[in-house]
Amino acid sequence: MKVAILGATGAVGRTILQVLSERSFPVDELVLLASERSAGQRISWGGRDWEVQAVSPAAFDGCDVALFSAGASRSREWAPVAAAAGAVVVDNSSAWRMDPDVPLVVPEVNAHAAENRPRGIISNPNCATIQLVVALEALHRAGTINRVIATTFQSVSGAGAKGITTLQSELAGQTPDASPFTGTIAGNVIPCIGPRGDDGWNEEENKVREETRKIMGLPSLRVSATCVRVPVEIGHSVSAAVELDRALSVAEAHDALRAMPGVEVTGADPLPRDVAGRDVVRVGRVRVDPDDPHVLHVWVVADNLRKGAATNAVQIAEQVTAAHTADAALRMPA
Amino acid sequence: MKVAILGATGAVGRTILQVLSERSFPVDELVLLASERSAGQRISWGGRDWEVQAVSPAAFDGCDVALFSAGASRSREWAPVAAAAGAVVVDNSSAWRMDPDVPLVVPEVNAHAAENRPRGIISNPNCATIQLVVALEALHRAGTINRVIATTFQSVSGAGAKGITTLQSELAGQTPDASPFTGTIAGNVIPCIGPRGDDGWNEEENKVREETRKIMGLPSLRVSATCVRVPVEIGHSVSAAVELDRALSVAEAHDALRAMPGVEVTGADPLPRDVAGRDVVRVGRVRVDPDDPHVLHVWVVADNLRKGAATNAVQIAEQVTAAHTADAALRMPA
Repeated sequence: MKVAILGATGAVGRTILQVLSERSFPVDELVLLASERSAGQRISWGGRDWEVQAVSPAAFDGCDVALFSAGASRSREWAPVAAAAGAVVVDNSSAWRMDPDVPLVVPEVNAHAAENRPRGIISNPNCATIQLVVALEALHRAGTINRVIATTFQSVSGAGAKGITTLQSELAGQTPDASPFTGTIAGNVIPCIGPRGDDGWNEEENKVREETRKIMGLPSLRVSATCVRVPVEIGHSVSAAVELDRALSVAEAHDALRAMPGVEVTGADPLPRDVAGRDVVRVGRVRVDPDDPHVLHVWVVADNLRKGAATNAVQIAEQVTAAHTADAALRMPA
Repeated sequence: MKVAILGATGAVGRTILQVLSERSFPVDELVLLASERSAGQRISWGGRDWEVQAVSPAAFDGCDVALFSAGASRSREWAPVAAAAGAVVVDNSSAWRMDPDVPLVVPEVNAHAAENRPRGIISNPNCATIQLVVALEALHRAGTINRVIATTFQSVSGAGAKGITTLQSELAGQTPDASPFTGTIAGNVIPCIGPRGDDGWNEEENKVREETRKIMGLPSLRVSATCVRVPVEIGHSVSAAVELDRALSVAEAHDALRAMPGVEVTGADPLPRDVAGRDVVRVGRVRVDPDDPHVLHVWVVADNLRKGAATNAVQIAEQVTAAHTADAALRMPA
């Protein structure tokens, strides 16, 4: 198979390469694409060296699948070009997510949606949303969710490689050049991810809300999220209060969560440092609200570069290229 | 006035000394008390050196006020002794907080409660609770609160001086001796503060719930909190969804918050690093829930060693010893 990766040198792009390798995605030819600035770099993959090229219309010729992780404006420009060249585009940016003609897919939740893609584009959801929605869907199947109030603890790698180097610089007592954050992130927490609207909600918060509704197919689900950056390198955590139509005991909730592919329910509290480098969505701290048996509180942790981005994108690519047997679609690496 | 401080060498004890000085509390004689281990240390305060003594019954003779910050078991043992010696005890531990004969006081919210203290003991609330309840009370006066769902981001100094040294050791690549946390806190977040009950709720989470109800005088208020440790040295942050009996606009909520002594509503997002060393409770990110105009979302930040502990205790001491003019009771240092 001929596979293009746009944004191959970024934090998610490099993780996509790693995940393709780990999952033995049947790559015959890699087309590594990036901006002019990164063109000419060589990346070793599958026992060969591949040269990074500047993106161009010709680059997508003959590609079966194109994995995009280079920001919304590049996706808006190049996804239609890659799709016209015959590639299925799996796009990590926010550019196409809310387009009614573009499915927004988390395979464990709505794999079927990927089959109807009139533009030839499938969107990979926001990182915090992916892990949250996997846990929510599990509970929804057991008890029908009608409201979610979430607060996120998002790692700096959610802002890309620059997020990690910014935290590292600050911890080393240096002033980072061009921090992607609105304040010092070392030894701090910053309740601001993405631009802010007039109503006071940030773009990231709107993404969690709108994307959760779209992925779950519940367009009027009541969802709010307060999104906060924390000084963690990799791994997002989400604290969520989930109101259901019926009361679920902790044991019932655990059973529902364990029935979900890719979810791990452990005795120990899920911590972002422990899931970094893994594909699992780990759920813990399941508690019944002390005032309302219809409300469960959960704590959901995942590696935002893997399940929150690269792994989810590769899962989608496997599904649409049939690069897997049917029942392996949801297979998570050990 | 003769003032005893039990736990004088701890993180909160040292902050109490600083706050007494800043607020010109009329101290004639200081009695600095600690465990045998710390006895003999000398602490400079008010232009003199004071020797730390091991706590003993005689230590409280003639004391007007005793500020305790040495943990619950020492408070259980020594608060009645100090009270019997005639001192008003202001206790920072959880030992007496839920005792119906011990008022639990945040002066901005329920100063009057301090006047009725049959045991001679007044409890200073949990750090995360103090800052939350100041913001909640402001909103409650404007719109009557009936439900609160909170998630906290609590700094390591909430676990005392050892919390700070643990984070510093870990950031320096060393293994801390005797970390107070259940996992590595550097580059991590840990959703576990205090022992866990069979129902899955942690002690800290129960404190926020029960103490909020007691301070606000709303024994059946629906309150839940998920309490999380974050790698911040000083300054707790709380994300709260607050359901009110009537819809409040953001402007009305801002007005209500600004009318509360000690609260600051600023344009910039409140960050823990910015409030460290200050007494203010800073509130920001006030948003109306997109699905329910009766629900407001707020972000509340304060220095947990100061307003969350030392400053609140000294405010109470000022009130009960009349070491202030009446209208200065709620005065916050500039």
